Amino acid sequence: MQNPLRSSIQDATSVSGDGDARFRALAAELAEVGKGFYARNWVLGTSGNFSAALSKDPVRLAITATGLDKGRLRPEQFLEIDEKETVIRGTGKPSAETLLHIEIVRERKAGAVLHTHSVWSTVLSGLYAAKGGVLMEGLEMLKGLAGVQTHEHREWLPIIPNSQYMAPLARVVSETLKQHPDAHGFLLREHGLYTWGADIDEARRHIEIFEFLMETMVRRMNVPHAI
Amino acid sequence: MQNPLRSSIQDATSVSGDGDARFRALAAELAEVGKGFYARNWVLGTSGNFSAALSKDPVRLAITATGLDKGRLRPEQFLEIDEKETVIRGTGKPSAETLLHIEIVRERKAGAVLHTHSVWSTVLSGLYAAKGGVLMEGLEMLKGLAGVQTHEHREWLPIIPNSQYMAPLARVVSETLKQHPDAHGFLLREHGLYTWGADIDEARRHIEIFEFLMETMVRRMNVPHAI
Amino acid sequence: MQNPLRSSIQDATSVSGDGDARFRALAAELAEVGKGFYARNWVLGTSGNFSAALSKDPVRLAITATGLDKGRLRPEQFLEIDEKETVIRGTGKPSAETLLHIEIVRERKAGAVLHTHSVWSTVLSGLYAAKGGVLMEGLEMLKGLAGVQTHEHREWLPIIPNSQYMAPLARVVSETLKQHPDAHGFLLREHGLYTWGADIDEARRHIEIFEFLMETMVRRMNVPHAI
Amino acid sequence: MQNPLRSSIQDATSVSGDGDARFRALAAELAEVGKGFYARNWVLGTSGNFSAALSKDPVRLAITATGLDKGRLRPEQFLEIDEKETVIRGTGKPSAETLLHIEIVRERKAGAVLHTHSVWSTVLSGLYAAKGGVLMEGLEMLKGLAGVQTHEHREWLPIIPNSQYMAPLARVVSETLKQHPDAHGFLLREHGLYTWGADIDEARRHIEIFEFLMETMVRRMNVPHAI
Repeated sequence: MQNPLRSSIQDATSVSGDGDARFRALAAELAEVGKGFYARNWVLGTSGNFSAALSKDPVRLAITATGLDKGRLRPEQFLEIDEKETVIRGTGKPSAETLLHIEIVRERKAGAVLHTHSVWSTVLSGLYAAKGGVLMEGLEMLKGLAGVQTHEHREWLPIIPNSQYMAPLARVVSETLKQHPDAHGFLLREHGLYTWGADIDEARRHIEIFEFLMETMVRRMNVPHAI
Repeated sequence: MQNPLRSSIQDATSVSGDGDARFRALAAELAEVGKGFYARNWVLGTSGNFSAALSKDPVRLAITATGLDKGRLRPEQFLEIDEKETVIRGTGKPSAETLLHIEIVRERKAGAVLHTHSVWSTVLSGLYAAKGGVLMEGLEMLKGLAGVQTHEHREWLPIIPNSQYMAPLARVVSETLKQHPDAHGFLLREHGLYTWGADIDEARRHIEIFEFLMETMVRRMNVPHAI
Repeated sequence: MQNPLRSSIQDATSVSGDGDARFRALAAELAEVGKGFYARNWVLGTSGNFSAALSKDPVRLAITATGLDKGRLRPEQFLEIDEKETVIRGTGKPSAETLLHIEIVRERKAGAVLHTHSVWSTVLSGLYAAKGGVLMEGLEMLKGLAGVQTHEHREWLPIIPNSQYMAPLARVVSETLKQHPDAHGFLLREHGLYTWGADIDEARRHIEIFEFLMETMVRRMNVPHAI
Repeated sequence: MQNPLRSSIQDATSVSGDGDARFRALAAELAEVGKGFYARNWVLGTSGNFSAALSKDPVRLAITATGLDKGRLRPEQFLEIDEKETVIRGTGKPSAETLLHIEIVRERKAGAVLHTHSVWSTVLSGLYAAKGGVLMEGLEMLKGLAGVQTHEHREWLPIIPNSQYMAPLARVVSETLKQHPDAHGFLLREHGLYTWGADIDEARRHIEIFEFLMETMVRRMNVPHAI
């Protein structure tokens, strides 16, 4: 029997018939992701938001409602929204940053978009904000990013100024994604990490990799003297 | 059916009839909060204390008894006290800092008061004690504090000298709350964090936010050189 | 019905009749302690050892056998030993540092002795070894140590040079305990923490407090500049 | 009744009859190891790989398939391979670094080989790469390494330049093991730790010990000033 999660991503344009089962399966999977991230202190204080694409053209997302504790998400707390942020299924308001999710799915044809808000990304994005991004290189963990074959890969993680105005911020995100077609994620300054993947598993792997790399970079800067 | 937890906060002045159920529900919820905080090392060594308001005028609290392991709280270990710290329900001595809880509920009309004792708050409150407080600004996580709409918010977290004399300390807390009507919490020097909320969930969210922000500030200070 | 754990400490000289039940209860409790410490990274790599007194005069201990994973202890892996380290119950070799446990129970009339081996104690004991100890003061967490009433308490945590020769090391421990009758614990240099209590709960609380205080002290030292 | 895990290591040359049970038992044990390492952030982002020897001469390994989440390993995801990396049992591609596992089992007669990829090993191996290794000495935790009797032991942990070319890298590993016959592990630069043991338990203990020691060394370097 076909895995409904995988098929929801592959023939994502047909949202009908077993749409309910797909939605519930993706929501359940994202709720599990939330528990793991919360345990690692990556989504404290109701921060973070998660989505999976039910369809990419037109964009339809299963996405977290706003203001929820990410360690105690229940599948029924997810919403289905269309590309105008209209809630098609579920009750509640979608995450404030829903527009960014829509933009990422559109630009990258992503199957899932995950946003974490860790101490490490907050520190690192503040330290490197003036440079507009962080260069990550020489680290084996980079090989876990989709399509990367060697630790010699150079990953530019753009840093975008934080804003509460979602429409202009979404436009900056869209431009940034176009300018850096190879980027696997970006940071909002002192706000956190966005990354994505072909499916939830890949997006989750990318979160783990970037969180690892950011922690590594800050801890390396903490060593005050040469050996 | 109405949620007994929510109703206990809304019409909190009528403590009768289903008072038992309310008390037990709040105690059970605070016990769960304790387990989560203990797992994060925020209430080691029997430190920390938690309360929820059964009534605000006059003040009646469900509060932790003193000297308990916060990772293994049982609902029956909670006490009900009135505004003179008299134990109305349960056996044991209330937390030494009960007066501070009473003062906070009175001043802020809080539905719940939580106190954690983390490494980060101990370090930060020592470093900033001479300044009388810590200014937190520019960080997205601030938006999780009740009523805050933007990361451009400036939060002043007052630091109060630590003391073992609860009556005078409660007066300083009361004065501090009056002087800083917008503050969402305060630190006792090298002792820990107090914050509160309309209900237990909001108070817990505030703890997570302040603990995140304090860890972020100390870790940022650890980076010894400019980029 | 009387709690067998408490009674085992109070009238500890009579080891008979329900001695089996006492031993099993203490071993089960210490095994639980081990799981918690392992989860906090305080007893990695089979490090650490734990004991509880079945009798104090003459000394009889329930103690961990050597070389066991402290996160997966089973009660049947504990040994009963007398003051000459003879194994009276159970199979296996007692912890190499059994003599230190015996010395502590003798000197302090302790009901339980716990030894952890954390990163923080390793770092701190190395940094302060030349001073012979660490002074801890001004920190509220000190109040969790038995008999301490105020954060203004000054706790001297002696540091003893590490050694693989247990008989002379036990003599140094004995002398150190006599020289510092108010000390609630001591460090072996780059080896770890020993503390104790009237019962297992108190000893566990002391571990949590000292581990918290050591982490706090090292993290405070990491901040390279004044505010 | 004999423990099938132990016997699989002792008379490892006879792979027949109850080979299925051995394979499944080793795979189940390695899957548990993976869960513990993932919880400690040592194998994020599908990093890390684990093997146990079904036979040492000729080498036959139960080994993780490539690209799997190490926190959710299932025994059926393991492969059996021979010394030419041919898959004898199971479906999927073996870990990219399978050749290194084979080399280690050959050189050290190891019963199990574990590779973690922690923040601490990444930082430490980068800092010490130019020296070709890290000297660890004076630390009690060293005593947990097989055959070490005292904290005065000096452990040289070689650092090998990272590479994506497995055949030449395996030759460097083989030479390094020959040059340092007493080494209990080695680092790949900014990639992670390899260690091994007579069985899975010993290899796991070695991981815990080296991860502890590396964290300790980096944290010690973070203290910017003398006491």
